[in-house]
Amino acid sequence: MEDFEKEIKDLAGWEKVENKLSKNFKFKDFIESFSFVTRIAIISEKMNHHPDITISYNSVHIDLTTHDINSISKNDIILARKIEELI
Amino acid sequence: MEDFEKEIKDLAGWEKVENKLSKNFKFKDFIESFSFVTRIAIISEKMNHHPDITISYNSVHIDLTTHDINSISKNDIILARKIEELI
Amino acid sequence: MEDFEKEIKDLAGWEKVENKLSKNFKFKDFIESFSFVTRIAIISEKMNHHPDITISYNSVHIDLTTHDINSISKNDIILARKIEELI
Amino acid sequence: MEDFEKEIKDLAGWEKVENKLSKNFKFKDFIESFSFVTRIAIISEKMNHHPDITISYNSVHIDLTTHDINSISKNDIILARKIEELI
Repeated sequence: MEDFEKEIKDLAGWEKVENKLSKNFKFKDFIESFSFVTRIAIISEKMNHHPDITISYNSVHIDLTTHDINSISKNDIILARKIEELI
Repeated sequence: MEDFEKEIKDLAGWEKVENKLSKNFKFKDFIESFSFVTRIAIISEKMNHHPDITISYNSVHIDLTTHDINSISKNDIILARKIEELI
Repeated sequence: MEDFEKEIKDLAGWEKVENKLSKNFKFKDFIESFSFVTRIAIISEKMNHHPDITISYNSVHIDLTTHDINSISKNDIILARKIEELI
Repeated sequence: MEDFEKEIKDLAGWEKVENKLSKNFKFKDFIESFSFVTRIAIISEKMNHHPDITISYNSVHIDLTTHDINSISKNDIILARKIEELI
């Protein structure tokens, strides 16, 4: 199975933890957090590939994995890159 | 400290786990999950009291706690009731 | 040019006004209006076909048209049907 | 009735048209438009004062008025300032 080591290294702040690609984002307040999550919601539905998203006030945690293979796939890398473009 | 035992019993599906009041909600798809979270976002910002929210495709997990007292407060009960009214 | 007369007749409450397919929706409050608009936002971005949306408190007005042909196209019919499924 | 002439002059790009305070905002795409509208939705529900919002792909038009007095009130000025802070 591909491990996407190089691709993950190029994604600043993203880490592979077990079978997930994860990053934590900080914002100035809840409104900015939720606005970020709204943009992720739209792009992930468009890709038919959805992250797990946890919102805790001004912090947003994203976990990306591909359930079919119980591992990180190319789709997770693509979605992580799209999320980075939103910042 | 008040334990809100009676109030929590009246909140169908909500459970006290350690210092949190929690419930898991299931929807038919991601769009319905996210629409529910949007309504929670608006009412919680209006209350100045924000839950931790985790979205996993068609599942939404809510944790309510009051950080100042590291326990469940009256505000958590009020927010849980408002969330129930959204269903 | 196709006029989609039959398809529009089957779409309850939608009306052709000039080159647009339009409907007005009423909700109990602003939160319900905005939640409806959020779902439309997600499905329209997914279709790459976006309505004009006006939110006035508990009222949401939708105008569908296809700018390339300055008229109603099959895409507008499809999007109107998807919006109806959200109600 | 107060006309808020000075306050409106200080709000860059906002114009008084009849009884409304209006501005048009342009974004790079629909996702950015909708993200802006989401933030306005949250702050306006928090204020219990809601603008009319029209989303046309990458353009967002805002009309502020106070229906009770059929004119611009202090609340419209406050909401316009909060909207400017979102940009």
